[in-house]
Amino acid sequence: MLSRQQLIDKIKQKKSFLCVGLDTDITKIPEFLLDKTDPVLEFNKQIIDATRDLCVAYKPNSAFYECRGVAGWQSLIDTWKYLPKDTLSIIDAKRGDIGNTSDQYARAFFDEAVTGMSFDAITVAPYMGNDSVKPFLGHGKWVILLALTSSVGSRDFQYLEVAEGTLYEQVIQKANTWGNANNLMFVVGATKSEEFTAIRKHAPDNFLLVPGVGAQGGSLADVCKYGMTKDCGLLVNASRSIIYASNRKDFADAARAEAQTLQSEMRAELEKVGII
Amino acid sequence: MLSRQQLIDKIKQKKSFLCVGLDTDITKIPEFLLDKTDPVLEFNKQIIDATRDLCVAYKPNSAFYECRGVAGWQSLIDTWKYLPKDTLSIIDAKRGDIGNTSDQYARAFFDEAVTGMSFDAITVAPYMGNDSVKPFLGHGKWVILLALTSSVGSRDFQYLEVAEGTLYEQVIQKANTWGNANNLMFVVGATKSEEFTAIRKHAPDNFLLVPGVGAQGGSLADVCKYGMTKDCGLLVNASRSIIYASNRKDFADAARAEAQTLQSEMRAELEKVGII
Repeated sequence: MLSRQQLIDKIKQKKSFLCVGLDTDITKIPEFLLDKTDPVLEFNKQIIDATRDLCVAYKPNSAFYECRGVAGWQSLIDTWKYLPKDTLSIIDAKRGDIGNTSDQYARAFFDEAVTGMSFDAITVAPYMGNDSVKPFLGHGKWVILLALTSSVGSRDFQYLEVAEGTLYEQVIQKANTWGNANNLMFVVGATKSEEFTAIRKHAPDNFLLVPGVGAQGGSLADVCKYGMTKDCGLLVNASRSIIYASNRKDFADAARAEAQTLQSEMRAELEKVGII
Repeated sequence: MLSRQQLIDKIKQKKSFLCVGLDTDITKIPEFLLDKTDPVLEFNKQIIDATRDLCVAYKPNSAFYECRGVAGWQSLIDTWKYLPKDTLSIIDAKRGDIGNTSDQYARAFFDEAVTGMSFDAITVAPYMGNDSVKPFLGHGKWVILLALTSSVGSRDFQYLEVAEGTLYEQVIQKANTWGNANNLMFVVGATKSEEFTAIRKHAPDNFLLVPGVGAQGGSLADVCKYGMTKDCGLLVNASRSIIYASNRKDFADAARAEAQTLQSEMRAELEKVGII
C-alpha cells in the first residue's frame, strides 16, 4: 500500500505519473496466447513486465474480468498477485451502495485473507452519498471517487447547476469533508481539461486519476497545464492505447514503446515545473 | 425473462409484489449450515423454497457474494440457477461505467453461455449518464436505475435543486428518454414515501423497485398510497427482515412467516384499489 508521500516519491524516482489500465478483453489479445492456461493472466504479466519501470500505478478494470465469470475473477486475483508492490494497485470497480453493502464491496477488493486480493485503491461512484463512500474509507486504503468523467454522458448530470456551482464540484467539496488528500482521489476526465482550474479550487491537494488520454483523445499537455500541483497530483491513465498497441507476437514491446512515449512526455512536464 | 405484462400477471396471480433480497452474509446464517459444501447456496435454496409462492422477484446483492471471492461468485451463479423461472431475477450490482465497460458488466450478468448467469434485471448507477446506462438496455433485459435511494447519503446529491426540480427527478426524466416502462425501472427508497407523487409525474408507468421496507423502516402503506399505479407498478423489497428472521433451525419457516405477513398486507393493498 503506497501512502501519498510514497506515491510522490515514486513519481519523482520514475519520472512518470502513468497508470496502465488493464482493461484486458480476451477477444482483443493476441491469438497465440489463447492456448495458455489463463491467456488474460499471461497477457497481463507480459504487459506488466514490459511497463513496470515506466509507470507508478496499474488499474485493472473489474468489468473485463467479471464478464468471464469465475475464470475471470481468478484472472483478476492472479493479476493482483503479480502487480509490483512498489506501484499503486487500483481496482476500477465504480462500486457504491448503502453502508453495510459498501463495506462488503470494500472487503471484496481489500481483504486478501478471504478473497486473495488487497488493492491499494478502489474507484467509487458518488450518487448514493456519504454512507455509500465512507465504508470504503474505513479500510486504510485509497478511495478514488468519480467526479467529472470522460464519458459522453458526463453532460447528463455532472454539469447540472446546483446552488454552489455544478454537481461534480459539489461531489468534490462534500467528499473532502469525508476524506482528505491522504486517502481520497478523484476521477477527472482528461477530455475536460478546461475544468481542472475549477476542480483544483475544491481539491488543491488531492491526487486526480485522469482517464481519457490516448484512445479517448485527451491532451496530456492540457491536463498538466491545468491540473498539476507542486506534488504532481496527477495519475494519468492509458489503457487501450498501451495494451492493444499491437496484437501480434510483439505486443509487449509495442506496449512498452507506447508507455515510453507517454513517460517521456510526463518527464518533460515534471521537469518543466521543477518537480524533478 | 419476465416482460412487463408477465410481471403484472404474476403480481395478480400471487397477490404479491414482494421481492426477496438475498443479501446473504455468511457470518449471519445459522451455524448448523456451515458444514455444508456451500452454506450460502444451501441457505438461499431453503429461503427460496420457503418463499417462492409469496413473492414475484428475487434480488441477490452482488456485494455479499463478491466479498467471498471466487467461492462467492460460484454461490451467486448457483443461486441464480436455482431461482424459479416464473419470478423476476434481479442482480443488485449498481454498476455503471463508460460504454464499452458497461457492456462488459452487462455480459457478466446477462450472458449465461459465458458466465453461467442470465439475470432478468440489473440495478445501475446513473452518475456517468447515457453512455453508461444504454449498454445495459441493449440486452433485452430490465435496467433498474438508482433514482432516490433509501440511504442516509441520498441527501447529499439526489435532492440538489437543478433547473427543473431535483437531481433525482432529472435522472428519471432523462432516463425515460433512453428506455421506457418495458425495460426501465427505478430504485426509489421506501423511507421517502412523500416523494412518490413527484416521481410518478415523471415515471407514471415504470415499475419502481422499493427497498427500505422492513429493516430500514419504510411503511408499506405509504408506499402503496403514493406509489401504486393501476398495474401495481411496485416491487417492494425486503431482505434482512425476511432472511434473518431467525438464525436457528427454523430459519426458513421464520422467513416464510415474515414473507407471508408482507404478502398479506400487499394482498390487502391490491384489493383496496381493485387490482385483484
